[in-house]
Amino acid sequence: MNIAYLGMGIMGSAMAANCLKHGHRVAVYNRTASKCAPLAEQGAEVAPTPAAAAAGKEAVLMCVDDAPAVEQVLFGDDGAVHGLTQHADPPVLVIDHSTISAKSTDRIARRLSEEAGAVMVDAPVSGGDVGARAGALSIMCGGPAEAFERARPLFEAMGKTIVHVGERHGDGQRAKMINQMVVALNCVATTEAMRFGEAMGVDMRKVMEAISQGAAGSWSLSNLGPRLLARDFAPGFRLRHLLKDVGFCEEVIQELPPPQNEAFPGTEMVMNLIKRSVVAGNGEHNIHAMSKVFLDDSD
Amino acid sequence: MNIAYLGMGIMGSAMAANCLKHGHRVAVYNRTASKCAPLAEQGAEVAPTPAAAAAGKEAVLMCVDDAPAVEQVLFGDDGAVHGLTQHADPPVLVIDHSTISAKSTDRIARRLSEEAGAVMVDAPVSGGDVGARAGALSIMCGGPAEAFERARPLFEAMGKTIVHVGERHGDGQRAKMINQMVVALNCVATTEAMRFGEAMGVDMRKVMEAISQGAAGSWSLSNLGPRLLARDFAPGFRLRHLLKDVGFCEEVIQELPPPQNEAFPGTEMVMNLIKRSVVAGNGEHNIHAMSKVFLDDSD
Repeated sequence: MNIAYLGMGIMGSAMAANCLKHGHRVAVYNRTASKCAPLAEQGAEVAPTPAAAAAGKEAVLMCVDDAPAVEQVLFGDDGAVHGLTQHADPPVLVIDHSTISAKSTDRIARRLSEEAGAVMVDAPVSGGDVGARAGALSIMCGGPAEAFERARPLFEAMGKTIVHVGERHGDGQRAKMINQMVVALNCVATTEAMRFGEAMGVDMRKVMEAISQGAAGSWSLSNLGPRLLARDFAPGFRLRHLLKDVGFCEEVIQELPPPQNEAFPGTEMVMNLIKRSVVAGNGEHNIHAMSKVFLDDSD
Repeated sequence: MNIAYLGMGIMGSAMAANCLKHGHRVAVYNRTASKCAPLAEQGAEVAPTPAAAAAGKEAVLMCVDDAPAVEQVLFGDDGAVHGLTQHADPPVLVIDHSTISAKSTDRIARRLSEEAGAVMVDAPVSGGDVGARAGALSIMCGGPAEAFERARPLFEAMGKTIVHVGERHGDGQRAKMINQMVVALNCVATTEAMRFGEAMGVDMRKVMEAISQGAAGSWSLSNLGPRLLARDFAPGFRLRHLLKDVGFCEEVIQELPPPQNEAFPGTEMVMNLIKRSVVAGNGEHNIHAMSKVFLDDSD
């Protein structure tokens, strides 16, 4: 396909590179233009603005930080919406790999449809920079089935687990919210268990050997547990990003009708814990640093 | 080996049967004698009292409900301690597969040593009735290495993952406590995520397809998640047993010096949630019924 990719961060540049490898024609744009250089070496065209990148393309993909950044790159002065083929048939695909709220996604999708006749697929990912480079991401998609199917060849270039969660704009973001809620709460399990074992003076390597393959087993326990024991908090996935993501969950929960809005004590607890730990200066650490406020200064 | 097995519940009878299959000689005892019949058919000797079962044996194994039951079967009127070979060399092994507190284990081990010259190995298990029947349990052991090594042929008849956690009496129980803490907190993640998805109206089978193999993956999510969605709460592992086990964690946490005793907000949260759900009548359901207090009556 003939596509634009907007946002050459760690994730976007790896995803654009995989589209190139799979034979797609890719125009790239990034606010800081120098980040486009490695992609140019791999055969991408470098565009000076999102509008220029989007001109004549079948699909405009993006991976940026938050909803304001999505709106800027789409609807700003040189935004993609001003360059893309207006009211094309079939409509130009706008594929958003950013993690933003389902509500923002819905607003942006409506505006794209009204202002340019383009169709949006929200397609947040999990798998991190390692998964992005390996083309092994999980991609969770929301939007019309027709649009999802047209986008599939691109998803197959970037991901391994590709799921059309639902037809509503934001259904991909809803799946991602659920993913992040589980990631956050499993991380509470991992960090409290590790610290509990340390407090009792047991050899946690032995305990992990005994428990990690059974009913207590999780990605979190096997991957973050040993890192907590080693006091290795290098990111990876930063705690301040998890704060943003669990914040989306909190927003949705607060808008549920009572008593459902009070039915998520775990999410409430972990949200408070993450806030406290970010305020204490741990936002740039990996997510298991949510537990760092409980560790000795000497650790 | 020539052993006694005390307590023919679901777990004990399956473990004793696997000892028989591996060629050990087994005398069995149960308070309700009729439960010994299936083991007798498999070649076990049925003893009328724990003391009679223990007479002349190299090892006395047990799996009962709680610390009072362990103490009754060991030190009661016809308790095993009155039948086992006193101050043998090497000492008679007393292997406790029950889940009790590390503190109780330590007290019982001292008393066994003082009153009968026997050596205790605490060896709580995980893997449930399915794992017990398949000889695939995880067995977490505490006590002197010499005693653990002598017991190993028995453990290999009953389990697949056999770990000597540490030399202290109770180190097996400490590993089990950590296991149960993770099981309880991962279950919070699973149940809140499932209910969150339902509240947002997304197809949770699709979401599970997208997230269960990545950073959100856990035994809990894959096994209990679908059961919550189906409103299937049949035990399995009962919530009231998890209440007991997380209660052991809470006891240890409360005895930690400040500020460590306030550093387990997740465990505190899940303990309150489990209590609330057991009080509401969900104690006999499987552990994911901790979330049942938040479900509509119509569910």
